[in-house]
Amino acid sequence: MNTRQRLEAMRARQPAPAGMAMRAAPAASTLPSWPQRVSFCPPGMQERGGECVSSACAPQAHPLIDVARNAELADYERTVRARFDAIVPALKEIAAQQHEAGFEQRAQQIARERLGFELPETVLADAWVTTLDMRKLYGHSVLQTYHTLAREYSARWNGHAEADAMQRFFVECGFHEVDISPCADGRLKGLLQFVLRLPLQAVRRKSYAGAMFDVELNVKHWTETELRRFREGVPTLSDAGTRYLKVAVYHFSSSDPHHEGCAAHGSDDRQAAQAALDRLAAFRTAIENGFCCGASVATLLIGVDTDNDAIKIHVPDANGEMDTACFVDNLAVYRQTAGMAASEARWRLGAAIDEAVRETGRSAPETGMRSLIERLLTNNLSQIDYVCANHGGRYADVGHAERFINLGDSFDVLHLRNLAYFGHLHTIEEGAADVDVGIKIFSKLNVTHGLPVPIAIHFRYDEQVPGSRERAVARCRRIKAAIETRYPALCKEGLLFCGMTVQGKAPGSAQEEVSDIDTNSHGH
Amino acid sequence: MNTRQRLEAMRARQPAPAGMAMRAAPAASTLPSWPQRVSFCPPGMQERGGECVSSACAPQAHPLIDVARNAELADYERTVRARFDAIVPALKEIAAQQHEAGFEQRAQQIARERLGFELPETVLADAWVTTLDMRKLYGHSVLQTYHTLAREYSARWNGHAEADAMQRFFVECGFHEVDISPCADGRLKGLLQFVLRLPLQAVRRKSYAGAMFDVELNVKHWTETELRRFREGVPTLSDAGTRYLKVAVYHFSSSDPHHEGCAAHGSDDRQAAQAALDRLAAFRTAIENGFCCGASVATLLIGVDTDNDAIKIHVPDANGEMDTACFVDNLAVYRQTAGMAASEARWRLGAAIDEAVRETGRSAPETGMRSLIERLLTNNLSQIDYVCANHGGRYADVGHAERFINLGDSFDVLHLRNLAYFGHLHTIEEGAADVDVGIKIFSKLNVTHGLPVPIAIHFRYDEQVPGSRERAVARCRRIKAAIETRYPALCKEGLLFCGMTVQGKAPGSAQEEVSDIDTNSHGH
Repeated sequence: MNTRQRLEAMRARQPAPAGMAMRAAPAASTLPSWPQRVSFCPPGMQERGGECVSSACAPQAHPLIDVARNAELADYERTVRARFDAIVPALKEIAAQQHEAGFEQRAQQIARERLGFELPETVLADAWVTTLDMRKLYGHSVLQTYHTLAREYSARWNGHAEADAMQRFFVECGFHEVDISPCADGRLKGLLQFVLRLPLQAVRRKSYAGAMFDVELNVKHWTETELRRFREGVPTLSDAGTRYLKVAVYHFSSSDPHHEGCAAHGSDDRQAAQAALDRLAAFRTAIENGFCCGASVATLLIGVDTDNDAIKIHVPDANGEMDTACFVDNLAVYRQTAGMAASEARWRLGAAIDEAVRETGRSAPETGMRSLIERLLTNNLSQIDYVCANHGGRYADVGHAERFINLGDSFDVLHLRNLAYFGHLHTIEEGAADVDVGIKIFSKLNVTHGLPVPIAIHFRYDEQVPGSRERAVARCRRIKAAIETRYPALCKEGLLFCGMTVQGKAPGSAQEEVSDIDTNSHGH
Repeated sequence: MNTRQRLEAMRARQPAPAGMAMRAAPAASTLPSWPQRVSFCPPGMQERGGECVSSACAPQAHPLIDVARNAELADYERTVRARFDAIVPALKEIAAQQHEAGFEQRAQQIARERLGFELPETVLADAWVTTLDMRKLYGHSVLQTYHTLAREYSARWNGHAEADAMQRFFVECGFHEVDISPCADGRLKGLLQFVLRLPLQAVRRKSYAGAMFDVELNVKHWTETELRRFREGVPTLSDAGTRYLKVAVYHFSSSDPHHEGCAAHGSDDRQAAQAALDRLAAFRTAIENGFCCGASVATLLIGVDTDNDAIKIHVPDANGEMDTACFVDNLAVYRQTAGMAASEARWRLGAAIDEAVRETGRSAPETGMRSLIERLLTNNLSQIDYVCANHGGRYADVGHAERFINLGDSFDVLHLRNLAYFGHLHTIEEGAADVDVGIKIFSKLNVTHGLPVPIAIHFRYDEQVPGSRERAVARCRRIKAAIETRYPALCKEGLLFCGMTVQGKAPGSAQEEVSDIDTNSHGH
């Protein structure tokens, strides 16, 4: 049995029970519902105990990692993946019984038991006419799985205390707001919870294809934040000397740099980094030129290796300027510090920042920025270790393997690598580039297999603004109509499945499903 | 010769020379380029000296009117109308010569002499193949006429001193910003310069079909305004106790209330007023609920009779609340005060406010709000007198007679009744309702006569924000493409003519024409 055969045999096993330590491939169901890259041990990985393990993976636990949190996240990842992986087998079983007596009751029973929710009655009832509309059932099941999981986890995880602590730390570093724009790519969907280990409520996030965030919209958010400081002294007083920090996050693939990097930048790492850097500079200039009295913002550029979640942080100089060539490679820090005592490892991590600065002949960052960088690097060490422990140091799904597309506002629970492609937008007219990339990804992932593209349209509304909910609902429907107009061929074949939800802005608000205006015109 | 025949005979005369007093129909060319309602003396008007004159028109000059400004505006209106009215005769003359030798040179000569600009060379050069593309020439000429006039008047009129004085007056009244949202209807296009006599630079304005302004966008503008006050003390210090004033302007037609009122509200005056009032209340609630520490805004509702430009101002009570039933009818004030001495007329105008309040059993408005209302009513008396003097007390074109559609941002010069239908929008996806109304209007005005709908797409950009100009240019092109997609039949027939311009935000910036990306794909 060669390594590859062993790996496949491993994959065929049942998911390990929650809490069990795993140093192997991700918990995979017997019938994965989306294409998986069957990997062999590529350069930079080595066979160990029948598995491919990255040669960067430390043989023992790293001194700075959060072991408890890693176990919790592993359990979470397994649960979420298993729930999505259950969809195709369950639907196959249902499909096989569609011409039997009592089919509808039996189908709902299978769905309840194996998926945790019911299927749309009308689809089941109409099966006898021609055949069961599996596309509709699949689209429905993917989005329902998400919503069911979101409900479970939002009740279970209440990260407000953690978020408050993190925000206090940001303020200590000199930042009263941290606003992150990653690429829309689904491989960055775990950025906050996994890669950077930041509580979701502690930062603002808006994803765009290629991390090409909207400068004007960001100026608006800056304005809102500053006004709250002046009017309410929240989160800091207007004279506190703290700043708004804008972070752009690009990505690359170390094992397949020319194919699995950022599609929006032609899988060219340098171009992806430079474009994000230029956009950050444009935002900073917009604030500095547009507002008087020394208005400015801090900026930070981070790169993520989507193969293993290791980050590069580009170190700003004393003036806040960055360069694509001046960064700390956290995978190198992980390797260097793996065998050390915690205090020594911490010193080494700080030294890596100094070295990056010295090697490129630049000035050192401000103290607060330096503290933030140290925290992010330390947090990310836990994630590098997590990928070593749970994914052999490199994800099996190096490329795209998203389950659905999320358009509009971001969901505030359930973040996980390759869970969803997320495009932040208010209209398809302006967000078309982001949606096109998403549809292209899912054409390969789903449409080639006859499966529809599940699209979750989601908007937040302000309960305190009259008509805000109605406008969010109208926006959902308008976006859905615009998608169906933009991709008529997919729409006609039933290869688009759009779900719509709105949610109040107040913490703890539930997601509310939005129906089509005329349920008869839903048709796929 | 009956009144109607006399009126038509009058219309056939050449426009009166500039400066000459006119108490008749508007200066009309011999060949009007858009449909005109041939009117007879309807109820409320009487025949006087061969003309229909509103029975509300005072026989002598009113004591409170700005005679000099009225003369200036009459001259301006005649000039603008004459320039647009010259288009069709000039194009007819050019069309008649299209098969003659030296046509291209001759056509350009006619265009230069009679229209003041040249025609697109390629259109003239291609005439020999089939026939001259009159639709393209007409669309081009309408938009060029606008741009030529805008250049002339922006050089001639520099209203900054006047605007500064008006802003100081607003601040004295307790308002540091005045933001007006009229209906998109072209009959309100002269709202600021004519109806309310407010300098264009003194107020913010954004038009929407039915005056249904965007609450969220307005909250954003409020936020920007407040931040400037806190950061820069402009226009007032944050503790000055002044407020942001939002004005909504609906409209109605006294002579044909069920047909020539606001189309967006089914020509139902009461519904138009109530809907605008509800939107104002929603905005105020959004600010009061969304921001702490007593944040609030002032609101004001104004109705315009588009037959004669007389306004109704709905008087807010001491708490700023309004009612559709509590208003001052300025046409009544005009009639009552026409024969009075100036001081007596001023007292009478103030008394009209007290009476409106008393009759509906409401409390009186705050002093500052009262001063503002008095100023607006006084200003509007000049306009009522203007319509009496120049249009016999009622416009000949009671209905729609717009020359073009303006989409995006508003042009900041050249405002005139029925000049343009203006829809403030950033995407066709969200602004579709506004554009549909505009296209419907022009289907009757132009398309039924075989003429295209001229659409001027215009966006402002911030010279200080990197990439802002490029994004404004891209937005122009995106809007144009979206319009062509939304109205494929019109587009195919060459019945849509889109021009695109961008303009910097700095005062005095020129309008810059935007070309299609690929000039070959321009095609109509």
